[in-house]
Amino acid sequence: MIFLTRRATFSASHYYWRSEWPAEKNEQVFGRCSNRNGHGHNYTLEVTVAGEPDPVTGFVVDLKWLKDVMEKHVLSAFDHRHLNLEVAEFTDGAMIPTTENIAIASWNRLEPAILAARGARLSCVRVYETPEIFAEYMGEV
Amino acid sequence: MIFLTRRATFSASHYYWRSEWPAEKNEQVFGRCSNRNGHGHNYTLEVTVAGEPDPVTGFVVDLKWLKDVMEKHVLSAFDHRHLNLEVAEFTDGAMIPTTENIAIASWNRLEPAILAARGARLSCVRVYETPEIFAEYMGEV
Amino acid sequence: MIFLTRRATFSASHYYWRSEWPAEKNEQVFGRCSNRNGHGHNYTLEVTVAGEPDPVTGFVVDLKWLKDVMEKHVLSAFDHRHLNLEVAEFTDGAMIPTTENIAIASWNRLEPAILAARGARLSCVRVYETPEIFAEYMGEV
Amino acid sequence: MIFLTRRATFSASHYYWRSEWPAEKNEQVFGRCSNRNGHGHNYTLEVTVAGEPDPVTGFVVDLKWLKDVMEKHVLSAFDHRHLNLEVAEFTDGAMIPTTENIAIASWNRLEPAILAARGARLSCVRVYETPEIFAEYMGEV
Amino acid sequence: MIFLTRRATFSASHYYWRSEWPAEKNEQVFGRCSNRNGHGHNYTLEVTVAGEPDPVTGFVVDLKWLKDVMEKHVLSAFDHRHLNLEVAEFTDGAMIPTTENIAIASWNRLEPAILAARGARLSCVRVYETPEIFAEYMGEV
Amino acid sequence: MIFLTRRATFSASHYYWRSEWPAEKNEQVFGRCSNRNGHGHNYTLEVTVAGEPDPVTGFVVDLKWLKDVMEKHVLSAFDHRHLNLEVAEFTDGAMIPTTENIAIASWNRLEPAILAARGARLSCVRVYETPEIFAEYMGEV
Repeated sequence: MIFLTRRATFSASHYYWRSEWPAEKNEQVFGRCSNRNGHGHNYTLEVTVAGEPDPVTGFVVDLKWLKDVMEKHVLSAFDHRHLNLEVAEFTDGAMIPTTENIAIASWNRLEPAILAARGARLSCVRVYETPEIFAEYMGEV
Repeated sequence: MIFLTRRATFSASHYYWRSEWPAEKNEQVFGRCSNRNGHGHNYTLEVTVAGEPDPVTGFVVDLKWLKDVMEKHVLSAFDHRHLNLEVAEFTDGAMIPTTENIAIASWNRLEPAILAARGARLSCVRVYETPEIFAEYMGEV
Repeated sequence: MIFLTRRATFSASHYYWRSEWPAEKNEQVFGRCSNRNGHGHNYTLEVTVAGEPDPVTGFVVDLKWLKDVMEKHVLSAFDHRHLNLEVAEFTDGAMIPTTENIAIASWNRLEPAILAARGARLSCVRVYETPEIFAEYMGEV
Repeated sequence: MIFLTRRATFSASHYYWRSEWPAEKNEQVFGRCSNRNGHGHNYTLEVTVAGEPDPVTGFVVDLKWLKDVMEKHVLSAFDHRHLNLEVAEFTDGAMIPTTENIAIASWNRLEPAILAARGARLSCVRVYETPEIFAEYMGEV
Repeated sequence: MIFLTRRATFSASHYYWRSEWPAEKNEQVFGRCSNRNGHGHNYTLEVTVAGEPDPVTGFVVDLKWLKDVMEKHVLSAFDHRHLNLEVAEFTDGAMIPTTENIAIASWNRLEPAILAARGARLSCVRVYETPEIFAEYMGEV
Repeated sequence: MIFLTRRATFSASHYYWRSEWPAEKNEQVFGRCSNRNGHGHNYTLEVTVAGEPDPVTGFVVDLKWLKDVMEKHVLSAFDHRHLNLEVAEFTDGAMIPTTENIAIASWNRLEPAILAARGARLSCVRVYETPEIFAEYMGEV
């Protein structure tokens, strides 16, 4: 078993807000992230797949294919978007677009696509909001 | 003469849009950046001052003081903000918040504050929008 | 289960020395690190907590709170300090302040504070001495 | 148990090619990597050993010793070399020098050397081909 | 005047060799770089243009256009190539593909293309061979 | 004219203190840096030389030679040292080892050595104390 990781970036806006809370509570809990004009980040997405290298090609998966999967299922939906307003998982307050939830949403978008096409196992999704903050998700155990 | 640089980061949203243009032209010229929901970046701001080190302290300027100046005049205004909606230089379409114009706006905010307090010379402002794109401004010659 | 990591830095001095050994043996085992004037590093501390995101806030833990915990229990004690002379775990030769032991000491300071306040589980402490050298500790199994 | 990692770099050339395949298939599967003039990378090698810190020295292993082992068993063989033409694991098409296979080859070179000399356990080998692509190998389970 | 920089990467092979010299002299002068199987690097190319931001768009030049120019005139020729065997400036020993000469060759390819299309001034080309080594060229004065 | 830069790192301790000042003033001016146990950093040293590439070798200077000069004249004196106690420029309070003064001291050590051996011109010395703070010195004009 070997783990192969590909990294990509996307730039997006977000804010943290619970509509059922008064403004004061949103500000108290979420601080500057509660500004509903939104602010943004250069996010880094790292996708790790696990498997045996193919004895002929030496590939766990084709990295160009993995890049296309990441582009199709995550980057095209998240890059240059406002996550709260334009990405289904986060609209209408369904989930707050924290780093944790962005990692879970990315996993949920990537996992079936990778499994269906290659039978490869998605092992980990890591999302950096800044170089100082990141979340990792390995699916439900 | 020696050059001393301090780096800081801020996270902000922006979009590119000329209200006097039809949507098609905005999309053609500005591409994905024309999405008016906004998207965002982790910007890096590098501020360089030039001068002689004080023979007693060894400082061109006190770096804690420089940090406070950057915080007061740029970061507190730009960080966790939507540049088009909340920063004076960029509201009402006065200037498009490109990396170039963010560098110029930062210079204009910092230059008088540094000169007034220390008589030190601001030498360069460098702004990274991503690790791949940056603008440098040294003032009007 | 999701893993959330926050990174911070501190600058400190240290040296490696066993007082029960003659100077020659200290030099032989510890090389240039045996210089008792001390030398120093910009250390990077990465703290990982594990848990479920709160369904309302989307937080495993509040990252501002985690920053304060790291500041209170590790950074305020280690930053701008000489580890051998000013940090309890390393004074009187109790432990040599290697990267390994700095990671263990950081874990021991953080683990009860995180558990007491949030019931969250500390998952990993990673300490970089330089970008080329790091240690990771997940507690006693 | 603590994990201690040392990072090093090497610069090498490689290409991807199966001699039993016609040129068209090589180009289709391997894309630009099939150019048999070769192209190259600054690879990063991260080697992680696991163990208990020695209570006297505070070392899991001596990092200078680990550097020498990495130099002797991997870097001296891979650095400034053409992997397909000069490194045994990859000559005559034995294995394609993908990032995955370079990680496995590095593990196989390092694991017995570390075990024989110190009884320490090699835990992980991570190889970056670029900052965007890396493979991790923990040995056969 | 403002300076706008775009960064890109390419992976290529090279070696250092003067065919009019005996092997011993090549090895003495060029060391491990004289291995004629070639070795390689992930090069980083930074291209800086200088100008006034357009008052309407806020652009010195359109960064998407600059990316295309870099792709067309440098990256498509250098990436996944063996510089000594496939790039005109370096074949037949015309120039040794040192970092210095790669920067000059990149300048010579970019300068007329940028001037012809935009009338913008190319200000600097910076090429990193590794994170530790880079060359900068501003043209002939 | 082309500019060629080599980067290296060293780890050292320092503190800021004027012996003619009372402790209170040292603490007020220098803050946490006034702790006389010392603290430390991983410094980065970038040395830039300017010249024409040799038409035969393609070198402005031989980078291995430059590495040796940096090692002999700066790194061997600064690395794993306490700058205030072991480096001539900074002992007895001659100069406070600020980033600015470390850059000047490095220049003064490198400039005659480079000129004497190669006739090449030292163009710039850049010293990073942390990734957020750096000083650049180009000599006296």
